[in-house]
Amino acid sequence: MKVRIDDVAELAGVSKTTVSRVLNKRGYLSEKTIKKVHDAMDKLNYQPNAVARQLFKQETKLVGLIFPTVNNPFFGQLVATMEKKLFNAGFKVLLGDSMNNPDKEKLYLQELMSHQVDGLIVGAHNQGIDEYEHTNLPIVAIDRIVNKDIPVISSDNYQGGKLATELLIDSGAKVIIHTNGPQNLKSPAQKRRQAYEDTMRENGMIPIIYTSDFTDIDNGANQKVDFIKQIFKEHPDVDGMFISNDMDAAQVIDIAEDLGYKVPEDLKIVGYDGAEATRILLPKLTTIMQPIDEMADIAVNMLIERITDNSAGYDQVLPVKVWRGKTV
Amino acid sequence: MKVRIDDVAELAGVSKTTVSRVLNKRGYLSEKTIKKVHDAMDKLNYQPNAVARQLFKQETKLVGLIFPTVNNPFFGQLVATMEKKLFNAGFKVLLGDSMNNPDKEKLYLQELMSHQVDGLIVGAHNQGIDEYEHTNLPIVAIDRIVNKDIPVISSDNYQGGKLATELLIDSGAKVIIHTNGPQNLKSPAQKRRQAYEDTMRENGMIPIIYTSDFTDIDNGANQKVDFIKQIFKEHPDVDGMFISNDMDAAQVIDIAEDLGYKVPEDLKIVGYDGAEATRILLPKLTTIMQPIDEMADIAVNMLIERITDNSAGYDQVLPVKVWRGKTV
Repeated sequence: MKVRIDDVAELAGVSKTTVSRVLNKRGYLSEKTIKKVHDAMDKLNYQPNAVARQLFKQETKLVGLIFPTVNNPFFGQLVATMEKKLFNAGFKVLLGDSMNNPDKEKLYLQELMSHQVDGLIVGAHNQGIDEYEHTNLPIVAIDRIVNKDIPVISSDNYQGGKLATELLIDSGAKVIIHTNGPQNLKSPAQKRRQAYEDTMRENGMIPIIYTSDFTDIDNGANQKVDFIKQIFKEHPDVDGMFISNDMDAAQVIDIAEDLGYKVPEDLKIVGYDGAEATRILLPKLTTIMQPIDEMADIAVNMLIERITDNSAGYDQVLPVKVWRGKTV
Repeated sequence: MKVRIDDVAELAGVSKTTVSRVLNKRGYLSEKTIKKVHDAMDKLNYQPNAVARQLFKQETKLVGLIFPTVNNPFFGQLVATMEKKLFNAGFKVLLGDSMNNPDKEKLYLQELMSHQVDGLIVGAHNQGIDEYEHTNLPIVAIDRIVNKDIPVISSDNYQGGKLATELLIDSGAKVIIHTNGPQNLKSPAQKRRQAYEDTMRENGMIPIIYTSDFTDIDNGANQKVDFIKQIFKEHPDVDGMFISNDMDAAQVIDIAEDLGYKVPEDLKIVGYDGAEATRILLPKLTTIMQPIDEMADIAVNMLIERITDNSAGYDQVLPVKVWRGKTV
């Protein structure tokens, strides 16, 4: 006799709907439930029928994007490029700006699941959100480690940090400071910091790192100005700075010039990200360009493969380039 | 006997579902169908029961945002602010980047309706999309005239154009050029052009306007460089420029400096928009600041009122401010 979904449900002690949700990786499911259903399917040697599966599947053709904000050249370009690619593949985008607020990210995650998205691409920078552990939903992360089952698309942050530091050393700077985000974030961007430290030490120079601890975008702007001024106060002899993102680098240039430093004569600056809008608005900023469009393309392709073929995906690290402006 | 929805459907010669769609303003409906249903309801004096209506209503708690792109400081800030406010009001955002492409905007409009959004906020800049005429969906427009039934939230473009032109005249500039987008776009931004012309004439000066005809964002970048170079070729004596948006203004500064003009000594420049990211990346640009966050807030509030109370909404024009940089 052919094994039916009802048999699986009965043996697993769950509803038919729960079995179909496990089969189609929809909604919130505990690991225990998933295991029970899989065990029952194994025991009964249940082969889900492709047509029945399609019937249950309820594709929504919606993909959720959870990123800190689109009010930023890097994330704006990333989201715009993904949206365009998803649209061309027949998907609509549900947008969630988490504002680097873990509570908001958690809410988004729950609510996007209740809208039954077919998959998620996440680039929000919060650690410790348990919901990611308990979902069977296809997810791809950009530049962020969510958990070991979720593939990460990132640019070569180590190479970027090395290139930035070498640019400053080669230009003759002696007191080179690096600014970076909170160290406890599980982000591949931490490799920029490591590369800076390694490259400084290899050149017999002392690494000086300033870490900004405020990540809540809504409240970060004024704190950032104070943070930057503090660096100049504590290290008035600074003559090189590797700033972890271009928005911060623009603020550093502005504050440095107000304090009387000439860029690049007295102070050389390298930023990070190199988004399109930034290169139009501030072409003079020397920066490390992340391949934003390629990251977006690969993340979307991988997500679609995960959705349609249940493929696991794999981490990808893409090369960076130097944008040669006039600040080094 | 109480009139029921079935009676309305029968008299109108349509299905029950169509009647409920008319009642709840869902999906694509021809004006003819809407009229037939309304006529039948009038004839039968049908009073939709609030509970029945709620049952039919199928609120999705989804709002569609159709804007040219989020890869731009102005639209990025606008969309991020609306998204935040909508999230707090219990709505999720379906994002559509139309890339200033009318075909893409039309597709978005159809597909967002098929996802049954509760309402739309549009700021895409295409004219002549008939779909807007045939929808009963609550819509609010930002800085764009869609049709007479859709309220428009905009900033005071006439005042902005006047302020920009006066800044240049007061600074002593004699040959003042204005650049603007295609004249056939039904955008309140056309008032900037009118204000420039009026202010120049009132001061006994000759208006010189350059109109960029390329609006497709995907193909605009290189054309824009040629367009700007052409201005300097035809008017090497230009000493003041009022540029219709900040991204263009940044490119004008860059090209002007390459050509040997000193800003602001030889050439004074005023931009338009004054988004947050632009003011961080290019604080030296003197520009007219649109109240982006307020426009977003008001558009969201008005849309929610349209959704919940069927209110008609009304046009609102918000004041602008000058951001005093160093380019004038």
